Amino acid sequence: MTSAPAAGSPDRPAPGEEAAPGAVPVRLDLEGDLIALFRAICDVPSVSGDEKALADAVEAALRPYAHLEVVRDGDAVVARTNLGRQRRVVIAGHLDTVPLTDPPNLPTRVVGEGAHAEVWGRGTVDMLGGVAIQLALAAELVEPAQDVTWVFYDHEEVAANLNGLGRLMRHRPDLLAGDFAVLGEPTAAGIEGGCKGTLRVEVATTGVAAHSGRPWLGENAIHAAHEVLDRLAAYEAKEVEVDGLVFREGMSAVAISGGIAGNVVPDRCVVTVNYRFAPNLDLAGAEAHVRDLFAGFDVRVTDGAPGARPGLDAPLAKDFADTVLALTGGQPAAKQGWTDVARFSALGVPAVNFGPGDPLLAHKDDERCPVGHVTTCHAALREWLTR
Amino acid sequence: MTSAPAAGSPDRPAPGEEAAPGAVPVRLDLEGDLIALFRAICDVPSVSGDEKALADAVEAALRPYAHLEVVRDGDAVVARTNLGRQRRVVIAGHLDTVPLTDPPNLPTRVVGEGAHAEVWGRGTVDMLGGVAIQLALAAELVEPAQDVTWVFYDHEEVAANLNGLGRLMRHRPDLLAGDFAVLGEPTAAGIEGGCKGTLRVEVATTGVAAHSGRPWLGENAIHAAHEVLDRLAAYEAKEVEVDGLVFREGMSAVAISGGIAGNVVPDRCVVTVNYRFAPNLDLAGAEAHVRDLFAGFDVRVTDGAPGARPGLDAPLAKDFADTVLALTGGQPAAKQGWTDVARFSALGVPAVNFGPGDPLLAHKDDERCPVGHVTTCHAALREWLTR
Repeated sequence: MTSAPAAGSPDRPAPGEEAAPGAVPVRLDLEGDLIALFRAICDVPSVSGDEKALADAVEAALRPYAHLEVVRDGDAVVARTNLGRQRRVVIAGHLDTVPLTDPPNLPTRVVGEGAHAEVWGRGTVDMLGGVAIQLALAAELVEPAQDVTWVFYDHEEVAANLNGLGRLMRHRPDLLAGDFAVLGEPTAAGIEGGCKGTLRVEVATTGVAAHSGRPWLGENAIHAAHEVLDRLAAYEAKEVEVDGLVFREGMSAVAISGGIAGNVVPDRCVVTVNYRFAPNLDLAGAEAHVRDLFAGFDVRVTDGAPGARPGLDAPLAKDFADTVLALTGGQPAAKQGWTDVARFSALGVPAVNFGPGDPLLAHKDDERCPVGHVTTCHAALREWLTR
Repeated sequence: MTSAPAAGSPDRPAPGEEAAPGAVPVRLDLEGDLIALFRAICDVPSVSGDEKALADAVEAALRPYAHLEVVRDGDAVVARTNLGRQRRVVIAGHLDTVPLTDPPNLPTRVVGEGAHAEVWGRGTVDMLGGVAIQLALAAELVEPAQDVTWVFYDHEEVAANLNGLGRLMRHRPDLLAGDFAVLGEPTAAGIEGGCKGTLRVEVATTGVAAHSGRPWLGENAIHAAHEVLDRLAAYEAKEVEVDGLVFREGMSAVAISGGIAGNVVPDRCVVTVNYRFAPNLDLAGAEAHVRDLFAGFDVRVTDGAPGARPGLDAPLAKDFADTVLALTGGQPAAKQGWTDVARFSALGVPAVNFGPGDPLLAHKDDERCPVGHVTTCHAALREWLTR
């Protein structure tokens, strides 16, 4: 239950104005405590498709800064410096999260103290910590060493055709031009380069329908699928080194369906297989590999997206890695999931993932991010952009 | 489009009466041409759940015969003689059909001539030929050699709990008492004894969900199901002789499902298996066999029905078989499908299937019945009931 705001409340729209119930604008303070900003961002629910409140807050918070050109596109917000620097970097993060837990684990809460403190709640890992760092630095860095394009976008967690970064690339490719890109996806404050590609295919078996009382008159398509599952179960996924990073592939059945009634021998069974492949393969190469694996079966490609090579041999990428790793330690690693670095890769812009939060906790009910990751990533990005 | 009946039309309800639009009562002539009666019955669409028009027509056609006691229960109609004969036989048939083809293959049409003529259309095989024979003999045989209970029932083609014969057994078991039963299910005018039992189970595999980008963090339940399908594909169904008839068993996957999203390694896969077993096994024996086959997997029984032994050693059954086979030739065979003879078997009443139509054409789009089957079955039943 929500109580109606009292007459004269500052949240109440003036006569003649309209506001959806509960649509109280959120104000983000970009110059205060970083963790308070992080939590304030998480506390605005922004499940894919419902990012408007957070996008409004981001836009409203950035507009006052004279050093930023701010552009809104749908629920994406782009803010950039125009200092005429020799190089431009794009630093991007998505505003949306996967659906809330039931009951919702928002507002966020902090568990533990000091260096051990963790912020719990939806979005704390994927990826509102990165968004908080971007916002704080966008406000602070009036004269960064490179021109910076800060990108905040919508619909990352859903179907690729809805992706806000993809939409920006269609509407305003100029806004995404740059020499190097950093995506704030969770990497536990390390650098993860490139990403694997993904291909989904349907492997179908066919048979002849019959009544299950006389199965010898038919051919059971589900039984025939045993060979498809045998090949999947026996498949040994490769580990592939690309540009010095090791990508671990995967070949997984993600769905299987067959059967039309409890007394009918089915004449069709479909196994949906998702192949996650190292970025040495393009989509055509990945498709050829899957068709080879399932030789003799009907294979139909349903969707796919190429991966991205790590790109860490680009000069700006190397400089970024050196600066960041001087602060955070460790070595660059391969990003095992698919991320929007592949979109930059497709534009010819080298890109890496770098952000707070353990990627294995993304989308989990116990999603939580160490405060230390947020401050470390903030410090490393700040160092690199101000040297 | 239906034109409204003219005022004063005999089909128009009198003022104060009600009739649904188009609910023109069908009149069946039980004493005319048998094939015309057969076609007239088929031409009243009577898909399961929609048998009322045909049940009404059957009831109305039987009511005028003083030698019959007629009882209506839902859309089942029972008509019986009460001559005080030493023995009583139950002759039963269902009024419902599976759904019509698209476009509907009704009204029936006759293809071919003379002995080669076939009646095409839904219900011609399963099993309105048997119903036509029952109706004609019920009207004709005023003083049969045994007392006869003619049963016409609904909902045979759908879930067992809706079955009209089962409902009659609960409401009026006295109406189904007898020394022997004949079901007019299609047997191509031969005698088919007993029926197999049916057991459905769900065989489930479980795993650990994970993102398909990092499948090594999970365990794929669909991959694990390869062993279930391997055992099904390798299974050799038995042929089992019971009371002199050979029943051919079957073990069929009738459904498989698994997967919740295109990027998730699924943690559950379920294979639905239908075991059709010879009537030497009871349900418990069938379940034990299936659990043995799928040892190591989670097996859950969802439904089942026992089979029926042929019962052809009962004296009245033997007499029936001798009389019928003298006319039709051939030998009794095992009924491979499940039929309602199992319901009589459960009551301790020996029962056989005997009716016109090739059972392999039941439920098919090209369902059709030779005129010769109908006349032969009619002649054989008439002979047996009048000797």
